[in-house]
Amino acid sequence: MDSVTYRIGVVDTTFARVDMGYFAVEELKKCNDVGITRVTVPGMKDLAVACKKLLDGGCDICLAIAMVGPHRLDETCAHEANIGIMNAQLMANKHILSVFVHEVETNDEKELYDICVDRVTKHARNAYLLVAKPEELTKNAGTGKRQGRQDAGPIEVKK
Amino acid sequence: MDSVTYRIGVVDTTFARVDMGYFAVEELKKCNDVGITRVTVPGMKDLAVACKKLLDGGCDICLAIAMVGPHRLDETCAHEANIGIMNAQLMANKHILSVFVHEVETNDEKELYDICVDRVTKHARNAYLLVAKPEELTKNAGTGKRQGRQDAGPIEVKK
Amino acid sequence: MDSVTYRIGVVDTTFARVDMGYFAVEELKKCNDVGITRVTVPGMKDLAVACKKLLDGGCDICLAIAMVGPHRLDETCAHEANIGIMNAQLMANKHILSVFVHEVETNDEKELYDICVDRVTKHARNAYLLVAKPEELTKNAGTGKRQGRQDAGPIEVKK
Amino acid sequence: MDSVTYRIGVVDTTFARVDMGYFAVEELKKCNDVGITRVTVPGMKDLAVACKKLLDGGCDICLAIAMVGPHRLDETCAHEANIGIMNAQLMANKHILSVFVHEVETNDEKELYDICVDRVTKHARNAYLLVAKPEELTKNAGTGKRQGRQDAGPIEVKK
Amino acid sequence: MDSVTYRIGVVDTTFARVDMGYFAVEELKKCNDVGITRVTVPGMKDLAVACKKLLDGGCDICLAIAMVGPHRLDETCAHEANIGIMNAQLMANKHILSVFVHEVETNDEKELYDICVDRVTKHARNAYLLVAKPEELTKNAGTGKRQGRQDAGPIEVKK
Repeated sequence: MDSVTYRIGVVDTTFARVDMGYFAVEELKKCNDVGITRVTVPGMKDLAVACKKLLDGGCDICLAIAMVGPHRLDETCAHEANIGIMNAQLMANKHILSVFVHEVETNDEKELYDICVDRVTKHARNAYLLVAKPEELTKNAGTGKRQGRQDAGPIEVKK
Repeated sequence: MDSVTYRIGVVDTTFARVDMGYFAVEELKKCNDVGITRVTVPGMKDLAVACKKLLDGGCDICLAIAMVGPHRLDETCAHEANIGIMNAQLMANKHILSVFVHEVETNDEKELYDICVDRVTKHARNAYLLVAKPEELTKNAGTGKRQGRQDAGPIEVKK
Repeated sequence: MDSVTYRIGVVDTTFARVDMGYFAVEELKKCNDVGITRVTVPGMKDLAVACKKLLDGGCDICLAIAMVGPHRLDETCAHEANIGIMNAQLMANKHILSVFVHEVETNDEKELYDICVDRVTKHARNAYLLVAKPEELTKNAGTGKRQGRQDAGPIEVKK
Repeated sequence: MDSVTYRIGVVDTTFARVDMGYFAVEELKKCNDVGITRVTVPGMKDLAVACKKLLDGGCDICLAIAMVGPHRLDETCAHEANIGIMNAQLMANKHILSVFVHEVETNDEKELYDICVDRVTKHARNAYLLVAKPEELTKNAGTGKRQGRQDAGPIEVKK
Repeated sequence: MDSVTYRIGVVDTTFARVDMGYFAVEELKKCNDVGITRVTVPGMKDLAVACKKLLDGGCDICLAIAMVGPHRLDETCAHEANIGIMNAQLMANKHILSVFVHEVETNDEKELYDICVDRVTKHARNAYLLVAKPEELTKNAGTGKRQGRQDAGPIEVKK
């Protein structure tokens, strides 16, 4: 039904404190062969089935975007959400890129915001590469790429 | 079979110390296009299959409502219950909103009660929005909504 | 094939140090519309598939009965067993009531024994109610029912 | 295809430091109505699918035999392996007896060896009973049977 | 479609800081009856579905290769990835050898690099043996083989 070549789902939450879905959409708009479907759910445990429905409905890949609160219960919740996302991928036989930012990653709100923007933007690009140009990822195999902060880079030992 | 547009399942437990199912039903009664099916199970690990049976039987979405006791074993039990709820959603391809209140969230019984009422009421509303007005949720993407306590709000950094 | 209305499976272990299956059977015998199928497996991780086979074979519900040893490895084992029981329920679309008594719940053997008897007896009753009289459970929604010890009761705050 | 009545799969690892599969096979050879299929995989996370393939191929039950190293990562690995074994059982609708010996169970290599031999021998016997004489297990329900060390025995309280 | 006898999938990540996929491919090239398909994904939670797609598409076995960062969140992520890999194997009914190197295994970058090369090379060999010469693995059952470091060896107690 789509006139575009690839359809990418963007699923985020009302729980998150940064509108990460916005940045995902902005990044994907740069790819003129991509159609975007955006859905928002209340919290991170609602992401898996929302993504699965999009994948079953024709999306080629999804971004599952969440911010994880600072408490131990939030971390448990994130773990449960990610187990669901793992299973959803296997049931749909398509990728879902899990884009989770944990409040415990930093004590600084500005830095947290920057992590959100960087991580979701880079993973939006990764989503596109996975479906459209997978060979680009292989060129960077084992090079220590990071999303949310600067790349760790490869360990420099000669082969 | 229903003359209503949407059917929402409300599943709660005899273990909980607050009748949260009551408040879910009261909130959902405000939506005149919604039919409600209420089921009660003994404990939280019984919620997943009870919800799945309702979803398979025609409900569009379910609320899985529980109170988690204060002991470590209770927390483990909640984790197992939530993994089941994740899987039930994926098998039914429909949402189940997990509404769990943990006794460890507060030492004050009155506050615990208030958390229960606030969380289940707001999630009953979320359940309705997910099936009837999903665009309302996207308007609030990334704005730090909370259930059980006041909203965290968005991180204020200009885009 | 059954002349009874409901068939309930009772699955227990040789690992347990109390014959909890006996008490489940005794309680269920009081229901003259119930047929009982009893199976014993070595340990708690064997319960899930044993229950699933009974449910697939016609049982309406199962009790999965275990005693959990006092060591950390026993707790991990119980967690794995319960994850299996969660999945078995979803695959069979029927309830399995998990009746686990943890040795760490008390240091007193007599009290441990009493917890076993109380928990399995009450859950045998719950199993019957779930299949035969579910409305009885809804009457007790949110009232703090406990199995193995006395009820916690509801939090008393006026609605 | 088999002329034997029961076929039992024995799956072990090259990682283990005791040839537990050998002892399983020796014990099962005592049952003249049993055929044995033995498979070896590298590590414990490879056991689940190996067992599932044997069960799908006609085995009535499997033993999944492993030794767990002393590090925290080994314990996590064992947990993942056991979750897989739980799921494999449910998918095949047949039992897999998990026979795991953890190096942390003792600091003494000789005792570790003895635990291995005792546990795998007794569970080989349990595998046979589960498929050939399940009523023998029910006779020992709730009697505190142990594999790897001496039985804990029942808690002695008169009914 | 293949003129080779066996097809082995090699899946690695851009997150890893060593190009482990390269060493897997080099080792597998030594087997002249093997065809190799290499795919690279962003991170370790993307491995499971990538492997499953290769197995569904005709690969006989896959290597899922990852490096796990030093933080607690990285370990949780690895656990989720491995649960997915367990499930992918069961759904495809084929082996996926999980080749994970954890940065916490050593504080020395050179040693970390050596662990990576040794582990992935030995597991590439294991993958070949599993599909082409499984009896070779049984010869080494219970002998304490290790990948990434030297073999632990068997516990020396006479049978």
